[in-house]
Amino acid sequence: MPVREMIDTYPGEVNIDRSLLADAVQAAVQCAQSCTACADACLSEQKVDQLRKCVRSNLDCADICDTTARVLSRHTGYDANITRAQLQACIQACSSCGDQCEQHANMHAHCRICAEECQRCARACQSLLETIS
Amino acid sequence: MPVREMIDTYPGEVNIDRSLLADAVQAAVQCAQSCTACADACLSEQKVDQLRKCVRSNLDCADICDTTARVLSRHTGYDANITRAQLQACIQACSSCGDQCEQHANMHAHCRICAEECQRCARACQSLLETIS
Amino acid sequence: MPVREMIDTYPGEVNIDRSLLADAVQAAVQCAQSCTACADACLSEQKVDQLRKCVRSNLDCADICDTTARVLSRHTGYDANITRAQLQACIQACSSCGDQCEQHANMHAHCRICAEECQRCARACQSLLETIS
Amino acid sequence: MPVREMIDTYPGEVNIDRSLLADAVQAAVQCAQSCTACADACLSEQKVDQLRKCVRSNLDCADICDTTARVLSRHTGYDANITRAQLQACIQACSSCGDQCEQHANMHAHCRICAEECQRCARACQSLLETIS
Repeated sequence: MPVREMIDTYPGEVNIDRSLLADAVQAAVQCAQSCTACADACLSEQKVDQLRKCVRSNLDCADICDTTARVLSRHTGYDANITRAQLQACIQACSSCGDQCEQHANMHAHCRICAEECQRCARACQSLLETIS
Repeated sequence: MPVREMIDTYPGEVNIDRSLLADAVQAAVQCAQSCTACADACLSEQKVDQLRKCVRSNLDCADICDTTARVLSRHTGYDANITRAQLQACIQACSSCGDQCEQHANMHAHCRICAEECQRCARACQSLLETIS
Repeated sequence: MPVREMIDTYPGEVNIDRSLLADAVQAAVQCAQSCTACADACLSEQKVDQLRKCVRSNLDCADICDTTARVLSRHTGYDANITRAQLQACIQACSSCGDQCEQHANMHAHCRICAEECQRCARACQSLLETIS
Repeated sequence: MPVREMIDTYPGEVNIDRSLLADAVQAAVQCAQSCTACADACLSEQKVDQLRKCVRSNLDCADICDTTARVLSRHTGYDANITRAQLQACIQACSSCGDQCEQHANMHAHCRICAEECQRCARACQSLLETIS
């Protein structure tokens, strides 16, 4: 995925650490896809009635990660306030969804993979957030 | 727009004030559409080179409002932490974008309308946020 | 919702019928919100295991309507081929989702409202599509 | 990116070729990110007034690829009509956007990378579409 190449060919200044930025974009994009797929896999489980809360967390987290990846992919007229607030929302969503998925990780392999993606994304967003004063 | 009707036919409990919730969803949906249209209108202005920052704010705000409307439209397995964080991101995006658009409101009617939508959405999200302890 | 006002303040040419365009944007935005809310309401129904297909249609239709509303909200560098193809996808999604929701319209009021929004959106997109040669 | 792992842990039947499906999801996700970044990079170029059409294509293509990746990530209640129509819209958007970006590929490295991603995504969606009768 050419996330870093797109950052390196950006014609203006990039005011954030490029490695941390690329990691966060990549993690958010991956997490969004895993959450969308996990919501649908949960929906296909026989005991879907026990997974309602997990599906809802997955759907919220997918939307929030998608939007976070988009905001981070734009550097023109960089606004630290928006970036910071959206990163915080993303960390919260990934933390909640990761906890939900972890509860079913032993029973459902899709929840295990999704929990890992959520945790990875929360960490990448946290590392980036710490560099934005 | 049947936002309130959808809330009133929800089969489970809705743990937020229904009027404030419906207002916030409606405002976020409208603001997202106005921001998408305003970004494109700015792009079509002769002096687009002076509107780069405005386009960027519009695009961020459109994405963030869209996601906020989606999160607020879901009540199953309600997670106050996600809702609160996403509302805060939305208030920040609408505030930044509203300020940007206001600077061009006298010259560009689309920026004037969009600034009003941003301010309306920020207020509606703020009112809802205050009820989520 | 200031859809028509945004079209009327667009600084360039708009190559589509403005009334039909505004109707389609408004219908797509409404339908996306109804589908997101209906998916969540279905998820909250006691017999969620009988509504899996309905939830899936709702989620697809919400995403497709959202994207269609965004494409239709942009006029700069208008590309009839993209608009036409996305309208066709939207008509298909609304038709499939409307059929799904209609099957449960007597039992679930949220499915009845959502079916009406899907049908309205399919008609608005069809009317617009017919003007794009 | 664990696209294939999520497909392989899906609890129901997957009625499409898994390799082609995983390729198309991966390509659509990558293309969406490249298009979002390319739109912003174009917006930052000195001669942004010559890149209006390219920005617009990028924004449409980003939205359409995002939605296509989401539709393809869901298998529950698989509806071939929706999948087919959205794939066709995606191929059209990637083809139009790839052509736009290619025109500036010599001058702007971000357009060169983005054109490649568009072409890759169009091919992956085309290969998948051919297996859906």
